[in-house]
Amino acid sequence: MSQQNSAVVLGVGPERGLGSTLAKLFAKKGLHVFIAGRSEDKLSRVADSILKYGGKVTVVVADATKEFDVSHLFEMIRLQGLPLQIAVYNVDSNIPAPILDTEAEIFTQLWQQNCLGAFLFAKEVIASMKPHQQGTLFFTGATASLRAKPPFTAFASAKAALRALAQGLAREFSPQGIHVVHSIIDGVINGERAEQQFSEYYKSKGEEGLLKLEAIAETYWSIHCQHPSAWTHEFDLRPFKEPF
Amino acid sequence: MSQQNSAVVLGVGPERGLGSTLAKLFAKKGLHVFIAGRSEDKLSRVADSILKYGGKVTVVVADATKEFDVSHLFEMIRLQGLPLQIAVYNVDSNIPAPILDTEAEIFTQLWQQNCLGAFLFAKEVIASMKPHQQGTLFFTGATASLRAKPPFTAFASAKAALRALAQGLAREFSPQGIHVVHSIIDGVINGERAEQQFSEYYKSKGEEGLLKLEAIAETYWSIHCQHPSAWTHEFDLRPFKEPF
Amino acid sequence: MSQQNSAVVLGVGPERGLGSTLAKLFAKKGLHVFIAGRSEDKLSRVADSILKYGGKVTVVVADATKEFDVSHLFEMIRLQGLPLQIAVYNVDSNIPAPILDTEAEIFTQLWQQNCLGAFLFAKEVIASMKPHQQGTLFFTGATASLRAKPPFTAFASAKAALRALAQGLAREFSPQGIHVVHSIIDGVINGERAEQQFSEYYKSKGEEGLLKLEAIAETYWSIHCQHPSAWTHEFDLRPFKEPF
Amino acid sequence: MSQQNSAVVLGVGPERGLGSTLAKLFAKKGLHVFIAGRSEDKLSRVADSILKYGGKVTVVVADATKEFDVSHLFEMIRLQGLPLQIAVYNVDSNIPAPILDTEAEIFTQLWQQNCLGAFLFAKEVIASMKPHQQGTLFFTGATASLRAKPPFTAFASAKAALRALAQGLAREFSPQGIHVVHSIIDGVINGERAEQQFSEYYKSKGEEGLLKLEAIAETYWSIHCQHPSAWTHEFDLRPFKEPF
Repeated sequence: MSQQNSAVVLGVGPERGLGSTLAKLFAKKGLHVFIAGRSEDKLSRVADSILKYGGKVTVVVADATKEFDVSHLFEMIRLQGLPLQIAVYNVDSNIPAPILDTEAEIFTQLWQQNCLGAFLFAKEVIASMKPHQQGTLFFTGATASLRAKPPFTAFASAKAALRALAQGLAREFSPQGIHVVHSIIDGVINGERAEQQFSEYYKSKGEEGLLKLEAIAETYWSIHCQHPSAWTHEFDLRPFKEPF
Repeated sequence: MSQQNSAVVLGVGPERGLGSTLAKLFAKKGLHVFIAGRSEDKLSRVADSILKYGGKVTVVVADATKEFDVSHLFEMIRLQGLPLQIAVYNVDSNIPAPILDTEAEIFTQLWQQNCLGAFLFAKEVIASMKPHQQGTLFFTGATASLRAKPPFTAFASAKAALRALAQGLAREFSPQGIHVVHSIIDGVINGERAEQQFSEYYKSKGEEGLLKLEAIAETYWSIHCQHPSAWTHEFDLRPFKEPF
Repeated sequence: MSQQNSAVVLGVGPERGLGSTLAKLFAKKGLHVFIAGRSEDKLSRVADSILKYGGKVTVVVADATKEFDVSHLFEMIRLQGLPLQIAVYNVDSNIPAPILDTEAEIFTQLWQQNCLGAFLFAKEVIASMKPHQQGTLFFTGATASLRAKPPFTAFASAKAALRALAQGLAREFSPQGIHVVHSIIDGVINGERAEQQFSEYYKSKGEEGLLKLEAIAETYWSIHCQHPSAWTHEFDLRPFKEPF
Repeated sequence: MSQQNSAVVLGVGPERGLGSTLAKLFAKKGLHVFIAGRSEDKLSRVADSILKYGGKVTVVVADATKEFDVSHLFEMIRLQGLPLQIAVYNVDSNIPAPILDTEAEIFTQLWQQNCLGAFLFAKEVIASMKPHQQGTLFFTGATASLRAKPPFTAFASAKAALRALAQGLAREFSPQGIHVVHSIIDGVINGERAEQQFSEYYKSKGEEGLLKLEAIAETYWSIHCQHPSAWTHEFDLRPFKEPF
């Protein structure tokens, strides 16, 4: 893995978040990292900390659900000219609610963010990776990818759609050398988002009951490093204390 | 089951189709049937054949993906005033294509037709059934609900989203007396749609390799008749000759 | 369905049990029923109540895990000469315990009763049904067929083995006209066994939280009556109040 | 990871096999490796090659299905006194046949080798690891763990039983610090066994269509190295060219 290669993470938010942690790891491994998300402020802070330890990074403000934004992100990647080695679709949008209180707009938005954006991203990633017949495309899933439990029905529907997309892509593109991976993050990540969005639940877990960001990122990296003769398509990640 | 009750099937198309066959069976069982779909011509033909043998039917032209249309359909049902006993979301839209040839518009449309429409429909059905704490809500699924295989990735993604929606709804509303059911139609239906859309494949199956419409409808009816102490949430239906 | 046909239920115990209820229903439908189990007393009581309302029944004492006993049961069936229409493997043996407290003998016994017996039974059933290219073979599964939760790990392992057996049999023999079905009884049956074995849990469920025996049997019968063009291989049954 | 720790692999056969490859890797990582299997000859050859590059190894002849043998293996491990860090149940026994040609003895044997042995092994491993609240316990699964296809029904039944066992163990012992892992080897391993047992199929796959032993072992090692805050319980491994 040399500086001649690049990586992209779509869905980079707070510094203490999975997108940011993955980006930092990829930069440490010598990849030029494109980080994309909706908040320029957050992206800048992540970029700064990557630059601080000598990593290479490009910030692209992008809304994953907008075809134009996703196209633009990949134009930037192509312009730079480095072969794309890793791509992570890390957008994860969750608005829990009973179904009768869920507006069609919210139901649609969750699908757009968790699945449509992944589709737009995947098409660009595959177009970039196909000529070199290599590269890894990750999708970050959740417990809800496998089970729909109220009040997470809308989220689960979107995540199940994402999981099926990932599976279809793996079947179509693995034989062409593109490693398509779907993770099932089963538990609460020790990051800013859960801390703010589900603070009670977050606290109730305790330090030992939360997924460490660096630990997740290490496994993504190991999976990326797999030899094509033994590729993992799907794996779960869960704190040892998490009931399942 | 008396004439005091009603049923609704959204996704009624050709006469030799599942929506039409379910509507006819419900009418035969004495329910007033609301049939809805996009083609007034097709709906009229189905309505005629229901009227011919003395059934009661109301035609409502509706695009399942449009909130306004779905609302309108249920206004009609409420206006008539009969308690809703059975509701079937039978829209099933499939456009096979390699992922790189699939436009975002098509990917979105498949999701809207297979899943968003089901969400809009379900909200109305549940609002209608909750006061009586009874009724059955069916979603018609497919092999692809469980497995994403190219060139059906977009379809599979939409059907997986539908399946998760159905599961979440079952968990939320079964305890309130609403029977939520998801069928997995694993194989080719002996109807007009497959005959036209996948004609080669259709023929290759032979009479014995296709799902008979009346046979499917009978099982839907049996499931509807289940006692609440032993409800089926999910079942598959497959021609005996179908490999799986 | 005429008196010229027969049915067999292996795993008939207390009168208020699933085996007994299925046998009674089959007898009511006009089938000559062979009921088999380990307790002659219990079988006699079930047989008496079948005879009382004019049903036809043969009692065969058999331990499902003994090849000799299972062979003997089918010799009796063949001797009588009526074509076998329905066969149910209803043995369900559960001994909850933490894994470190589970002896190899118990682990083996649970597998023998839940799975090996089903295999022995299935071979005989298939040999009987193949010449007529028809008949339905049921296996009674449980929540644990899909999920292994302590202290039910040994039970879940055995039930998962049974489920895979049923799936393999369906793939091998459906095309030969034998309908192979696996049920997932997800909840507590309102019968003597649960009442005695899990009495606290049983009571906590309340009347509405338990599966009614007759309701389960009705669905088995509906599935048996399915047209071969639309066979169900697997379905769940769950009280409407049961969380899942 | 220092020489103060040990590892055990049960199910070590030919040198070009998964058991042997895992043992060699563990030895290279500095663990004292106990290798166990039925053939003293094969074990000796594997031990020799471990010793050759300076690894530490103990050979124990053991039939995984015999409680006495498994106990003896762990007495040897305890006698040596090094904390057990990794344990792999790698026995994988497959005898394909149509169900009607499968004797009860064979059906039982496949379960004993694939599942009962795993149970005996697991109990000993857990007893060894519990005091230190750490260690990784691997079970090697297969495609058939998830799907039962003739003529592999008996094998699939046994592997499904193993998978459920692994799941129950993970739920019971993860919170106690023991990492329980189930792999799904989906494809043909480039080893002696497949080469001999399924030679036609093996050849048809070509070099690129087979799982490389070292590649599999690398992923096992990565999973072992995971931080407890993000443990994988199940993952698949598949050659990039393998259809699934």
